Amino acid sequence: MASDLRTQDIQNPVDVAEYLFRRLHEVGVRSVHGLPGDYNLVALDYIPKAGLNWVGNCNELNAGYAADGYARVKGISAIVTTFGVGELSAVNAIAGAYSEYVPIVHIVGYPSTASQKNGMLLHHTLGNGDFNVFSKMSKEISCAVSLLNDQHEAATLIDNAIRECWLHSRPVYISLPSDMVQKKVDGDRLKTPLDLSFPKNDPEKEDYVVDVILKYLHAAQNPVVLVDACAIRHRALDETHEFIVKSGIPTFVAPMGKGAVNETLPNYGGVYAGDGSNKGVRERVEASDLVISIGAIKSDFNTAGFTYRISQLNTIDLHSYGTKVRYSEYPGVRMNGVLKKVTAKLGQLNVEKGPKPNNDIPDEEVKSPEPTITQAWFWPRLGQWLEKNDVVITETGTANFGIWETRFPADVTAISQVLWGSIGYATGSCQGAALAAKELGIKRTILFTGDGSFQLTAQEVSTMLRNKLNPIIFIICNKGYTIERYIHGWEDSYNDVQEWKYKELPYAFGAEKDSVLTYRVSTKKEVEELFLDREFASGDTQKLRFVELVMAWDDAPVALKSTAAAAAKTNAEN
Amino acid sequence: MASDLRTQDIQNPVDVAEYLFRRLHEVGVRSVHGLPGDYNLVALDYIPKAGLNWVGNCNELNAGYAADGYARVKGISAIVTTFGVGELSAVNAIAGAYSEYVPIVHIVGYPSTASQKNGMLLHHTLGNGDFNVFSKMSKEISCAVSLLNDQHEAATLIDNAIRECWLHSRPVYISLPSDMVQKKVDGDRLKTPLDLSFPKNDPEKEDYVVDVILKYLHAAQNPVVLVDACAIRHRALDETHEFIVKSGIPTFVAPMGKGAVNETLPNYGGVYAGDGSNKGVRERVEASDLVISIGAIKSDFNTAGFTYRISQLNTIDLHSYGTKVRYSEYPGVRMNGVLKKVTAKLGQLNVEKGPKPNNDIPDEEVKSPEPTITQAWFWPRLGQWLEKNDVVITETGTANFGIWETRFPADVTAISQVLWGSIGYATGSCQGAALAAKELGIKRTILFTGDGSFQLTAQEVSTMLRNKLNPIIFIICNKGYTIERYIHGWEDSYNDVQEWKYKELPYAFGAEKDSVLTYRVSTKKEVEELFLDREFASGDTQKLRFVELVMAWDDAPVALKSTAAAAAKTNAEN
Repeated sequence: MASDLRTQDIQNPVDVAEYLFRRLHEVGVRSVHGLPGDYNLVALDYIPKAGLNWVGNCNELNAGYAADGYARVKGISAIVTTFGVGELSAVNAIAGAYSEYVPIVHIVGYPSTASQKNGMLLHHTLGNGDFNVFSKMSKEISCAVSLLNDQHEAATLIDNAIRECWLHSRPVYISLPSDMVQKKVDGDRLKTPLDLSFPKNDPEKEDYVVDVILKYLHAAQNPVVLVDACAIRHRALDETHEFIVKSGIPTFVAPMGKGAVNETLPNYGGVYAGDGSNKGVRERVEASDLVISIGAIKSDFNTAGFTYRISQLNTIDLHSYGTKVRYSEYPGVRMNGVLKKVTAKLGQLNVEKGPKPNNDIPDEEVKSPEPTITQAWFWPRLGQWLEKNDVVITETGTANFGIWETRFPADVTAISQVLWGSIGYATGSCQGAALAAKELGIKRTILFTGDGSFQLTAQEVSTMLRNKLNPIIFIICNKGYTIERYIHGWEDSYNDVQEWKYKELPYAFGAEKDSVLTYRVSTKKEVEELFLDREFASGDTQKLRFVELVMAWDDAPVALKSTAAAAAKTNAEN
Repeated sequence: MASDLRTQDIQNPVDVAEYLFRRLHEVGVRSVHGLPGDYNLVALDYIPKAGLNWVGNCNELNAGYAADGYARVKGISAIVTTFGVGELSAVNAIAGAYSEYVPIVHIVGYPSTASQKNGMLLHHTLGNGDFNVFSKMSKEISCAVSLLNDQHEAATLIDNAIRECWLHSRPVYISLPSDMVQKKVDGDRLKTPLDLSFPKNDPEKEDYVVDVILKYLHAAQNPVVLVDACAIRHRALDETHEFIVKSGIPTFVAPMGKGAVNETLPNYGGVYAGDGSNKGVRERVEASDLVISIGAIKSDFNTAGFTYRISQLNTIDLHSYGTKVRYSEYPGVRMNGVLKKVTAKLGQLNVEKGPKPNNDIPDEEVKSPEPTITQAWFWPRLGQWLEKNDVVITETGTANFGIWETRFPADVTAISQVLWGSIGYATGSCQGAALAAKELGIKRTILFTGDGSFQLTAQEVSTMLRNKLNPIIFIICNKGYTIERYIHGWEDSYNDVQEWKYKELPYAFGAEKDSVLTYRVSTKKEVEELFLDREFASGDTQKLRFVELVMAWDDAPVALKSTAAAAAKTNAEN
């Protein structure tokens, strides 16, 4: 065809698909999630050629969740689906990544450009000849959409998409028509790595903001720091860490910020979430005369139902998109540069000590003769057992709220989906996170999900087995959707689920008897024994571990109870 | 609030949710698919009150597929999801229903109207205060979107949505904000049933078209009838049946039209799909001087890769939206009325007999000493075993093409997704179809899916167990995505799947030992024995039956082979 770039015109021609996958390799991707489908098959041939590993998930929603988990551990991820049927199955996972600022490159195998031009009545279409309808839907949940319909633009569009994905920390959508896969692009471009650095703040503006912040900091009598999700997602953790360590200011995390801060630091103070805060935290934070808020997302479930009591007059907000000091806004002044300079010029501060969270079991639990595993007992007990570098994934539901009561060791990566809150997410995410952890040499990936939630995406345990991953999986067996019961329908059957024999599943999914360890614990004593079991606990155990953790159907972490009550109230208001 | 309709202003007030579910009951829905989520919980309370049964699926995609299967058996269905996370998981299933003309009422539990107005940063949102983004996405795959934000409009919007759903035979989207559930609407409206009749054709126009058709019919020497999916979906089966029986014209079905015609009729001729046609059919259809085509959808997989060789000069196309005689178009002249009048005025026709399909095993298979179950042997053998009224679901892949070789008994309902072709569909669909069949007193629902496809949606077997359904499930165990292998990647690992112990799954999903029968058959002899097993075969057996049907990884029905080759060619063209 006339529009074909002739191979002889390019010094170092590479195929479009090779170019794409080599760029992904360059930014740190080592495994690609997804499913085969006829519009992407030829592209899949290039994955091993680019030094990448194909995961091969059980379905696209799960693959999307897995890509999300992988990106949260490794900084970026990729998923390949097929046109229509495949990509739409992943939409919920991609929307979650958009909502929670997780960078996923979503590559969709498209019908050939010729089929598109001719409006052919192909399978996986709506039958109306419209080949743009699905990209239009994905535009709503992507920070960039690159349709690779022209060989001459392909390399530029690929580079732009990956850069946008990284810098905005949100999903991008790339269409790859079947006839474009083997078209040639200029391979010499690959000699120049993508520029992934954030645009620098205007220095004069930045200095101005830094001076304003320092003025308030020096004037404050009892400042606190509050770290939230965007500090993690917008790659400001190094700057945050230096600021916290050097300033010594009592530092708290929002639930979505769990894991952002080294919780063994002497000035780490615990989880702040309004009425759902750790013990002593609410009083300390709300009595503070200056809150340095880093990367806040003030959603309902992240604030125990909007129960923050912090005045904007006492707040400095640092974001990826700008800074706000009290009511003065400084759009475009990004947190990273500001934090760095503030830390450098810190000087003398007034620092009043904060609470020191620990993993002590509450008194009433210690005294209780009941053998049942309670939520109040379990989560601090877990904190005693966790190790440095663990990756801990908690599902929306009791686990996501319970983990507020767990003080982490250093360098724990915590994964949860507090804002988007799609049940089923955690099991898929665990597959991706465990794979990413393995690639990084991290030994333990630990999942806590509920029985109701697990049922949505259970088959991804099969993908873990297929990829020889060895996460530790806890299924909280409490007979259904407990979080929903606390909102509405306490004993209604729509909050029940079919009672599975969960422990049998890994074997049904094809696990060899000796490649999996399964357990069922229903008393505190059994949990204690399990935690002491070397084979179970060791990061060197090359077996998937699968635990039925039996808890009461009507028990929930205290923070969930208050958040659910607030949600029920909001739902009824008009 | 000022906009509240006061209860005393209405003679017979009913709550919005009650109104909605009573209307669904009125049009034939008896079971509602879906999952609970906090924005829909209060609405779920109304389901039993309206005489409906709540299914409680394992995830929303599966629930969507199930609703699709239910609608194909009962004429319409309903699914309830929750805002964002729930609805987006169902999007692929809804898009499939849109593509294939399946009427599903999709009810989405929304945050309260107050939360929406205030742009609150709620869970299950993109965090940007935009509450319209998901309905905008669904607009692309719905024939109507009704947002119930105003009590005064609610009843009208509900009525319109259900009517549109029925008449266009496509999904509609209804948002139900949590605070609208218990708002009052006029219950007296329910005394007048919805008018679901199709608008009548303009009689003068219709008579004109009928005369034109009759002219060509009488002139034809060897006419044939070709029935396709839209005859089923647009509710023209009675008119089609009368026309076929009275005219005696040889009648063929397209793959998507399987089940539309009583295949025991003396003038039933088999499946026409160009190069993928049943034996002798292509020659007969393509030699005909007049093809009466009823409800055609000429997609690639429905035509074995666009291999029809029928001239438009020999074709009369009857559709829901109009009629086309050769190149003369008559928009708005709907097939139902036309067929009725044509049948009434039929007169003397030239009828040349067509081929008579049977379920004879091909000679080479009969003679073969190989014990392996071949695709060429299995599908006609199945035809001998099927019974009147069976519901037969075939998954995209070998099953969907294999079933072309099966001649059905009378009144079989065949379910497949030839155009949309989303793998995983059939297992979800089977749950809904089996439930619908049970409600109608139909005794056997039979699923054929592949191992690769089954893995996407396997957990819906749990929903079947929970709802005490007793389908007969065949998992074709052939080591992965065979349909993809025929397109590209013959032995590539991306077309493999993890090998499950499929038979173990129902038990892992909580089935009692005596509530399920499981089998594994890997030879023709074992299939013969299985088909003869009374307990297995009987429609009165109240147990779910689960069969591993072992077939070779590289075997496929002949129609799949040619269609896949055509697809590979189309993918490469530019």
